[in-house]
Amino acid sequence: MQAVLEEILEEVRPLLGQGKVADYIPALADVPANQLGIAVYSADGELFHAGDATTPFSIQSISKVFSLVQAIKHCGESLWERLGHEPSGQPFNSLVQLEFERGKPRNPFINAGALVICDINQSRFAVPALSMRDFVRHLADNPLIVSDSVVAESEYQHRARNAAMAYLMQAFGNFHNDVEAVLRSYFHHCALRMSCIDLARAFGFLARDGACLAGGEPVLSPRQAKQVNAIMATSGLYDEAGNFAYRVGLPGKSGVGGGIVAVVPGRFSVCVWSPELNQAGNSLIGMAALEKLSQRIGWSIF
Amino acid sequence: MQAVLEEILEEVRPLLGQGKVADYIPALADVPANQLGIAVYSADGELFHAGDATTPFSIQSISKVFSLVQAIKHCGESLWERLGHEPSGQPFNSLVQLEFERGKPRNPFINAGALVICDINQSRFAVPALSMRDFVRHLADNPLIVSDSVVAESEYQHRARNAAMAYLMQAFGNFHNDVEAVLRSYFHHCALRMSCIDLARAFGFLARDGACLAGGEPVLSPRQAKQVNAIMATSGLYDEAGNFAYRVGLPGKSGVGGGIVAVVPGRFSVCVWSPELNQAGNSLIGMAALEKLSQRIGWSIF
Amino acid sequence: MQAVLEEILEEVRPLLGQGKVADYIPALADVPANQLGIAVYSADGELFHAGDATTPFSIQSISKVFSLVQAIKHCGESLWERLGHEPSGQPFNSLVQLEFERGKPRNPFINAGALVICDINQSRFAVPALSMRDFVRHLADNPLIVSDSVVAESEYQHRARNAAMAYLMQAFGNFHNDVEAVLRSYFHHCALRMSCIDLARAFGFLARDGACLAGGEPVLSPRQAKQVNAIMATSGLYDEAGNFAYRVGLPGKSGVGGGIVAVVPGRFSVCVWSPELNQAGNSLIGMAALEKLSQRIGWSIF
Amino acid sequence: MQAVLEEILEEVRPLLGQGKVADYIPALADVPANQLGIAVYSADGELFHAGDATTPFSIQSISKVFSLVQAIKHCGESLWERLGHEPSGQPFNSLVQLEFERGKPRNPFINAGALVICDINQSRFAVPALSMRDFVRHLADNPLIVSDSVVAESEYQHRARNAAMAYLMQAFGNFHNDVEAVLRSYFHHCALRMSCIDLARAFGFLARDGACLAGGEPVLSPRQAKQVNAIMATSGLYDEAGNFAYRVGLPGKSGVGGGIVAVVPGRFSVCVWSPELNQAGNSLIGMAALEKLSQRIGWSIF
Repeated sequence: MQAVLEEILEEVRPLLGQGKVADYIPALADVPANQLGIAVYSADGELFHAGDATTPFSIQSISKVFSLVQAIKHCGESLWERLGHEPSGQPFNSLVQLEFERGKPRNPFINAGALVICDINQSRFAVPALSMRDFVRHLADNPLIVSDSVVAESEYQHRARNAAMAYLMQAFGNFHNDVEAVLRSYFHHCALRMSCIDLARAFGFLARDGACLAGGEPVLSPRQAKQVNAIMATSGLYDEAGNFAYRVGLPGKSGVGGGIVAVVPGRFSVCVWSPELNQAGNSLIGMAALEKLSQRIGWSIF
Repeated sequence: MQAVLEEILEEVRPLLGQGKVADYIPALADVPANQLGIAVYSADGELFHAGDATTPFSIQSISKVFSLVQAIKHCGESLWERLGHEPSGQPFNSLVQLEFERGKPRNPFINAGALVICDINQSRFAVPALSMRDFVRHLADNPLIVSDSVVAESEYQHRARNAAMAYLMQAFGNFHNDVEAVLRSYFHHCALRMSCIDLARAFGFLARDGACLAGGEPVLSPRQAKQVNAIMATSGLYDEAGNFAYRVGLPGKSGVGGGIVAVVPGRFSVCVWSPELNQAGNSLIGMAALEKLSQRIGWSIF
Repeated sequence: MQAVLEEILEEVRPLLGQGKVADYIPALADVPANQLGIAVYSADGELFHAGDATTPFSIQSISKVFSLVQAIKHCGESLWERLGHEPSGQPFNSLVQLEFERGKPRNPFINAGALVICDINQSRFAVPALSMRDFVRHLADNPLIVSDSVVAESEYQHRARNAAMAYLMQAFGNFHNDVEAVLRSYFHHCALRMSCIDLARAFGFLARDGACLAGGEPVLSPRQAKQVNAIMATSGLYDEAGNFAYRVGLPGKSGVGGGIVAVVPGRFSVCVWSPELNQAGNSLIGMAALEKLSQRIGWSIF
Repeated sequence: MQAVLEEILEEVRPLLGQGKVADYIPALADVPANQLGIAVYSADGELFHAGDATTPFSIQSISKVFSLVQAIKHCGESLWERLGHEPSGQPFNSLVQLEFERGKPRNPFINAGALVICDINQSRFAVPALSMRDFVRHLADNPLIVSDSVVAESEYQHRARNAAMAYLMQAFGNFHNDVEAVLRSYFHHCALRMSCIDLARAFGFLARDGACLAGGEPVLSPRQAKQVNAIMATSGLYDEAGNFAYRVGLPGKSGVGGGIVAVVPGRFSVCVWSPELNQAGNSLIGMAALEKLSQRIGWSIF
């Protein structure tokens, strides 16, 4: 496996320069573009990695999976009264669909849905940003994970579109806490800095039917773990979820920081990172690396 | 397995009466509602079935998979210049998205996409309706399969919305043959009558990485078969694809005739049939039966 | 007045070359761009004209006013069960709004609304194209007016978008006749060839509260004439109706042939013609000429 | 005239009970429904009134005309770089169109457009709420006009949808001041309390080509006054602008407080008030009274 990962990084490295680092906030635009890392955890805890796999980066929308898991743990099925689990078929930040569907977001991985999830968690946790930080530290078994407050503040300064969505949902009665407070929590989650190794490990429970490697209390029930994987498979890559299923064939979740996490149910959790994005806002090289990896090892669930 | 199928039919039978038989054309509205059948083929050709598994019914949109496979066989990847493979996030018959996206349908399983696929096949086959009929006879190994011309004619009389979509795509330059001729082919495909056993067998190649049971020329390459399964998983159940992944966890395709086909990659192909539909236009009892079956046997790919 | 018209044509002539002749069908694309004419009829029948005021051109969407008047004459207020009289706020050929509003077009001057009007007239007249031709001959007092069958046929060949709209309305139950037959009538109306003088005269009844110059049976009641003017004022220039009110301040109707007709209630009817269109599809020089004329003589109704 | 006004109020009074008082905030819901007043000012300053013409009410969206006039006075034509003057063809509070048109509102009388106007005025005035109050006191020649701070605060508490629009425009770069501050100004304008007599007098300059009755500095130039009337005529009554032109035939502006103002250019300014609204959000009895008045006296501009 180790050799395969290194081979694949060499094969995709020539694609450097074809994508574009996210530049909607300065703190993200400054990330050096030519970084590339990958990490694979087997379900029984074996680690493989190559490239810049220990460099922390901004996990951004990958945090939406952690928020969703927190919400599932305390709401169960009643969660779905507030949002759906259908693919959205629109770019990830569109208000149009949200207005047509009267403030009920399509799924937890578009921004509107993630904001509803944060609103739900805000009602439960005293300090949501800390609860989230501790949760991912636990999942990744790394007590040093922190959120980058400069990034969080910068995102907050550019909150206009997310604020518009939150207020629109409030107008439809589907947002219960103070909009500004929830946005602050949301951006703190997005600004968490984790490495490929951290993320591959933190997603391990989704490759183990919800169980922790160390034993003890499972993160989710087997059925819930499958459901999270199902939502990732249909909605995890913004407006490119279908293409990810077509090319890679795995449940996955991407972030504009350039990370993509994928799950091979029962077998592996993977994280690849490269900051340059394609037109759909997903890591260009990350997509290519995962496609090769999935084909080489026969990982597709289809 | 046989016992499991019979148990499950008994468990879901009490749901009879909660759905609504499709009634947009008289020929479908007349189908007795209280029918219920299921058939499972293993990848190595073992058959199990229960209930009305030998009764032919109108396969309707399930035919979209066969059309797609025909188009893939002769176009390969160039197919995707004419349409996408992203979930649509709108009810299956919406023109709005089609206009926004300038006549390029989101995927081959919404009506607009299926019409483009038919337009592509129309350019290739002398008599598309016959080519399709022979293709499904071959896949199902049943020379008696026919299309119901009364249903096809009745659908044609109610073609207004499909005609609107076809003309809109023509306005955008994405429709090359005579609209009326393509519609006639399309409705002939939809009006094919097959039983659960026919359909389970006909979908077997998707559980066998594209290969025929009898050997010989494969229907699709392994990679193409995975891709078709991926598209079914993200877009196969209209505006309920996410829910099907969430509840059943398998690639699948439904039709308004009440059939749902699902694939357990490498292991099984399944067809369940019950004419009453839920609000999303999918067989209400079919969904319930597949959910139970998938959980009982642990079929979810997630 | 005569002098004013000639002055204004000289002032706007330098704008020649800034617009673009409609080229969606060859028959229109071939019209020489550098033509320019204007005609003004006073309510008591005095005629003034300048430039190419006697050259017939394709009236295109200006015919929608004549169709509307025919429909009002035999339906009265019940007409508005089939369509609205609200401005549309979208480009003139959009299907989006039509789908949202379930097949009921916003007003009679967008294509969808004009098609419903033609469908209504189709149910009443044995040969709608002839009834229309005779009606405009009567209004313009010119027995030589004809429809250009080459243009009509060419429009029919490019009917895709209009066909899509008609079928969509049929899908919503708001279209009662054969789509192809109504489209043929519609394109015959659009292909009528009239000069500025013809059109200014034909619109005279709208400047005379519905009355004919010669006396006899009025075309419309005074109240109906005001209503037609009101609809022209809010919806007569596609997605530029607000701008026309803002700049010219008169009820008006344009066509892609480059004609614009305007009404000064109680006083004048005007037609200006120049084939080059602006980005909104209205005659670029026609807009400028009418703005100058309206300001020079103080015609604005506001 | 006095007699006509009293007659008309008697004719429309039986419609009381058919509409519905605005209830989205308590302060408006508490207004007694059975009030009805009308006032007419002639262009040379003669006043006629009937019913509850001296009772102040919440002018709400009628304030959008005053804001627009303030913005025109200091921006002139450059104003239209920030918003359009086309009718919107959607309900008054829709975000859909705003997103499609990239944050540039259709016109100054939909909420999004009024918010942009307030944002423009916010950049100019130290205390916009006071500048507005003084402006309407001057126009209405009534130093006692005040804004109801309870209503303004209550509107602010229910600001979600307006906040969503403002943030969306900020996301598109078309909002320059702090969203919360502009919303506070906006709601103060809406909460101004004026009577029918106040409003009829305050709109007098639009019936006098922009001039003040007392002479002195005109409010607007003649051309600008016509332009404001033109925008009212095409966009003044939310999604019923076409119907108002069709039935009443005058430039007008309504508010959810139940007021409707109309202008008979060169002759009169009118205000009618009755709190019950029709489904389009306009005063049900106000519409009926203006229709009768316009027909009785022959006021239609068409």
